[in-house]
Amino acid sequence: MKIIKIGGHIIDDANALTDFLNHFAKLKGPKLLVHGGGKLATQLAEQMNIPVKMNEGRRITDQVTLDIITMVYAGKINKNIVAQLQANNCNAIGFSGADGNTIVSEKRPNKPFDYGFAGDIKKVNTKTLKLLLDNNIIPVFCAITHNEKGQLLNTNADTIASELAIGFAKHLKTELYFCFEKNGVLHHISEANSVVKIITSKIYKTLVANGTISEGMLPKLNNCFHAINHNVSKVCIGKPNMLFEKHSLFTTIKK
Amino acid sequence: MKIIKIGGHIIDDANALTDFLNHFAKLKGPKLLVHGGGKLATQLAEQMNIPVKMNEGRRITDQVTLDIITMVYAGKINKNIVAQLQANNCNAIGFSGADGNTIVSEKRPNKPFDYGFAGDIKKVNTKTLKLLLDNNIIPVFCAITHNEKGQLLNTNADTIASELAIGFAKHLKTELYFCFEKNGVLHHISEANSVVKIITSKIYKTLVANGTISEGMLPKLNNCFHAINHNVSKVCIGKPNMLFEKHSLFTTIKK
Repeated sequence: MKIIKIGGHIIDDANALTDFLNHFAKLKGPKLLVHGGGKLATQLAEQMNIPVKMNEGRRITDQVTLDIITMVYAGKINKNIVAQLQANNCNAIGFSGADGNTIVSEKRPNKPFDYGFAGDIKKVNTKTLKLLLDNNIIPVFCAITHNEKGQLLNTNADTIASELAIGFAKHLKTELYFCFEKNGVLHHISEANSVVKIITSKIYKTLVANGTISEGMLPKLNNCFHAINHNVSKVCIGKPNMLFEKHSLFTTIKK
Repeated sequence: MKIIKIGGHIIDDANALTDFLNHFAKLKGPKLLVHGGGKLATQLAEQMNIPVKMNEGRRITDQVTLDIITMVYAGKINKNIVAQLQANNCNAIGFSGADGNTIVSEKRPNKPFDYGFAGDIKKVNTKTLKLLLDNNIIPVFCAITHNEKGQLLNTNADTIASELAIGFAKHLKTELYFCFEKNGVLHHISEANSVVKIITSKIYKTLVANGTISEGMLPKLNNCFHAINHNVSKVCIGKPNMLFEKHSLFTTIKK
């Protein structure tokens, strides 16, 4: 079982997305795609003259922002990905966490700061997803969950991918791939091929201490270690070609 | 098997929608929901300063309009309905026709007039839907289809409901219910209870000739007759209470 997460940079580049989906469709065996949102939600908010509210670099999801995210992530992006996969003979079905009650979250506590309709995952239900996969149907997840009380919640796409991987790992050998715009975790940000090939928790501490890993990479790496520490058999970070080409450079996370 | 279509007026009224979904969740047996779009797409287009293009009273679906419809119908409306059904212990999954390749359409011909990305249905695939229904999972359809070549298409929700009903009728006893804001087809538009209880094709011709049925009701009735003439066992038009209350008024279509 392969869980593959693609980031916003692929979503924002139509040719890169099409190329990725062509390859993804051909990938053998059970697989599941999780996609981020890219810049489209921010662009729509601008077009609607709705200011993006932030606190310490993180988006605050008020009601109108939640509507925008739901429209862009679950509507425009998700359905266009599904239609493109169908064109490649990959029988995809789009999911939010509300669909099939697959991902249950709860609103992040109001204190110390209220981030609005941001959801932290409580539970993943893989039963319906396995039923579909057994019938050669491929789930495609956007980064929206629900609280089982009728409320949709905005949830980090990396976290969705790692929690789904952990859920599947209870029943199946599961691999998790985080695709982004770099070849992996880099020793030197300016050198594209300076990939740290293996990161253990010991190496991780050193890389954080010396500043190699910082900011946005910290939560990504935390999601990686969360997965590898909960029976996910393989966790990798790199460009999508790590999935499709031999001898490509990428980072593997080990315990 | 019950196929139920709800119109835009329920979507536009949050209380009416919640009330309907509470009842729908409790309905026994296999069921499927199709929802229209209401005024939300037009409102979003206004907020984005995008003019709605019409020809002879029909919307022209250019690329930006298709994006808006996909965001509003498949995103905001569909996911909020699914989340509300989950809150009522109804295990729903949202669908467009692209999801599971369930509804294949083709772009309406450019001549005599190009309505843009409007799709006419070619094929309905019920296999995946039956797999889900057999596992007590309820499909919820928005009015978007695809052409199997990666293109999403805007498709009439009444037509989606009748084509799905015809598809299911090949395998199961299937009933089709069109819910809207009136008690059914009315003899006199100003008298809410002047319901035409039964419409046969003979009565239909008379009602069209004398002007009782006109404009928007014509395509709706055509969808009804299309279904009843293709093995759908029961076709009704009325308020949602026709499904939930005994002795309610509604119109039944007969051959």
